[in-house]
Amino acid sequence: MQHGPRRRQAIESAQKAGAHALLATHGPDVRYLSGFTGSSGAVALFGGRAWLFTDGRYTTQARAEAKGLRVFIDKGSPSVRAAAWLAAQGATSCAYDASHTTVSELDALRKAIPGKLRRSFFVAADGLVARLREIKDIDELAIMRRAAALGCRLFDGVLEHIVPGATEVQVAANLEFQARLAGAEAMSFETIVASGVRSALPHGHATKARLPRRGFVTLDFGVVLDGYCSDMTRTVHLGKAGPQEWDVYHSVLEAQQAAVAAVRPGITCGDVDEAARSVLRKAKLEKAFSHSTGHGVGLEIHEGPRVAAKQQQVLEPGMVITIEPGAYLPGKFGVRIEDMVRVTQRGGEVLTAASPKVWIEL
Amino acid sequence: MQHGPRRRQAIESAQKAGAHALLATHGPDVRYLSGFTGSSGAVALFGGRAWLFTDGRYTTQARAEAKGLRVFIDKGSPSVRAAAWLAAQGATSCAYDASHTTVSELDALRKAIPGKLRRSFFVAADGLVARLREIKDIDELAIMRRAAALGCRLFDGVLEHIVPGATEVQVAANLEFQARLAGAEAMSFETIVASGVRSALPHGHATKARLPRRGFVTLDFGVVLDGYCSDMTRTVHLGKAGPQEWDVYHSVLEAQQAAVAAVRPGITCGDVDEAARSVLRKAKLEKAFSHSTGHGVGLEIHEGPRVAAKQQQVLEPGMVITIEPGAYLPGKFGVRIEDMVRVTQRGGEVLTAASPKVWIEL
Repeated sequence: MQHGPRRRQAIESAQKAGAHALLATHGPDVRYLSGFTGSSGAVALFGGRAWLFTDGRYTTQARAEAKGLRVFIDKGSPSVRAAAWLAAQGATSCAYDASHTTVSELDALRKAIPGKLRRSFFVAADGLVARLREIKDIDELAIMRRAAALGCRLFDGVLEHIVPGATEVQVAANLEFQARLAGAEAMSFETIVASGVRSALPHGHATKARLPRRGFVTLDFGVVLDGYCSDMTRTVHLGKAGPQEWDVYHSVLEAQQAAVAAVRPGITCGDVDEAARSVLRKAKLEKAFSHSTGHGVGLEIHEGPRVAAKQQQVLEPGMVITIEPGAYLPGKFGVRIEDMVRVTQRGGEVLTAASPKVWIEL
Repeated sequence: MQHGPRRRQAIESAQKAGAHALLATHGPDVRYLSGFTGSSGAVALFGGRAWLFTDGRYTTQARAEAKGLRVFIDKGSPSVRAAAWLAAQGATSCAYDASHTTVSELDALRKAIPGKLRRSFFVAADGLVARLREIKDIDELAIMRRAAALGCRLFDGVLEHIVPGATEVQVAANLEFQARLAGAEAMSFETIVASGVRSALPHGHATKARLPRRGFVTLDFGVVLDGYCSDMTRTVHLGKAGPQEWDVYHSVLEAQQAAVAAVRPGITCGDVDEAARSVLRKAKLEKAFSHSTGHGVGLEIHEGPRVAAKQQQVLEPGMVITIEPGAYLPGKFGVRIEDMVRVTQRGGEVLTAASPKVWIEL
């Protein structure tokens, strides 16, 4: 893992934000900058040096995982101790992530530094490390490829459990069981298995509802491998489908493929979204596509960039995003198809290509 | 669910904190006050009225779940819309939870209300709803009984998978599979299966390590049922144990039982902790007991009260806490035993009593 270069980039960003030091406390940011995976830690960067603060539960683990940082083990809040340490080291200002620091925490941080520094010490800088995390390095991509590939294998394996009369929960349970046995630390999010009329719910978590003889089943799930999330959606049909099901499925598939084809460095996220949306508009399904086209994915299941209408952020090589348009007809059915796509130097590479997106009738 | 009385209590607490209105945005607080289970919502209370703010994904769900509140569906941050609404309704001050509101969110909230109100409108009140949630009502207790009972059944069922050579992950996967099939929405936290020398790690998540022919296996896990968490730990021994294993196990068991016996209304959390700690002190295992005795549990796996050394908070009827002392001998082994205990009018009731805590040699 290239933690040293990441820390150098992070302190440069803090300096651009007008601060001499950086305090990172959000778990995924701490992991990204240090390699430390414990649940409680803070990374402090200042003057070319790096420190990790955590507590006695993680003495062995922190020293094993965090390379190139000095590790401090003690009681009390790691972020408060880190802030006090930075002030003691001579830092006079420090960037912190205001979107991941509560009002109470900031209050405690302020109390930890000398009174004369308090007014100007903390510089609010939303998502400073999160923005660096949008570009995956070669080590991260290697893990994410494995996570995406595992997702595809799990989907292929769970197809045999998609039978009329099985409950959605049984399908999810079997998928999650295989995920665990294959080494997943966790699922990326609560598994979605939405069948029949429930497929019209974009966020239909698995319930005790039984799969119908005829109807769609949407599976949206991901695994966590070495801290990184996968995310994919496939919609299959049980029994013989009618012409409307067929048409909506293929409109969503066409929209999804159009957005995947649009992925390249320099294009705005809004334009990628529009590539999917315009296909569904032509099919008179614009209103049925009630959410955005995708999102960045990595140490968190939802991270930057947002692939949504009018988003001006530009795709860059190394980003990994989801492309997941859908169409939902309340009371009838819904379809969603989702891939993970890496932005390459010239275009996009689908990381979840091993699972076919063709019409599957079971 | 007794959401009306909860809301009345909450607004009274806000008034005691010096505010006319209450804004709740933390997911478990929103669910507690409204019944709404969606991932994005805000509850506003003012002048005897109650409103729920969420977005278009939850139109049907919010109206079905939230009884006695007016539901507003729109785009944009629910909390920002709720704050603006409260100001428009004539509220001049509003309590919010500073320990669950980020600096960025508070900034956005402030911008949502008229300039002349901004300075004094938001009253920081840490854990105002969280404190109400510490006392479980009869509906909550019914769910938590079911969750605790399911935990016990899962433990009994997983014993057959605890065999030398199986991996910790296989044990966890089987337990989680059965949990899912039995209706658990999720696990309360990442399942701990710590075997052999790994049992000396208080937070040993299941790994690919294989269970030894001889040694302890600690299982610490919980299920989520209807939003409420269970939490229990049992430690069993594979093969014939030595005298030290036997002695440490029974010291921890004695400590655990002493703390359970100490539970009653009016006792401080510190005294409950001391009941466990003094037993381990006499057994010369005080240093091996490196964490606190327990915590409240409910909609969140860790909530108030903290059952730790010197905590002055007093137990009250209706609280549900864990009692989970342990002893960890690094490089050798560890033991932890944990029950969920409800504080009754006169003492304590163990909710996880169906799983025996006697020495189990497999």
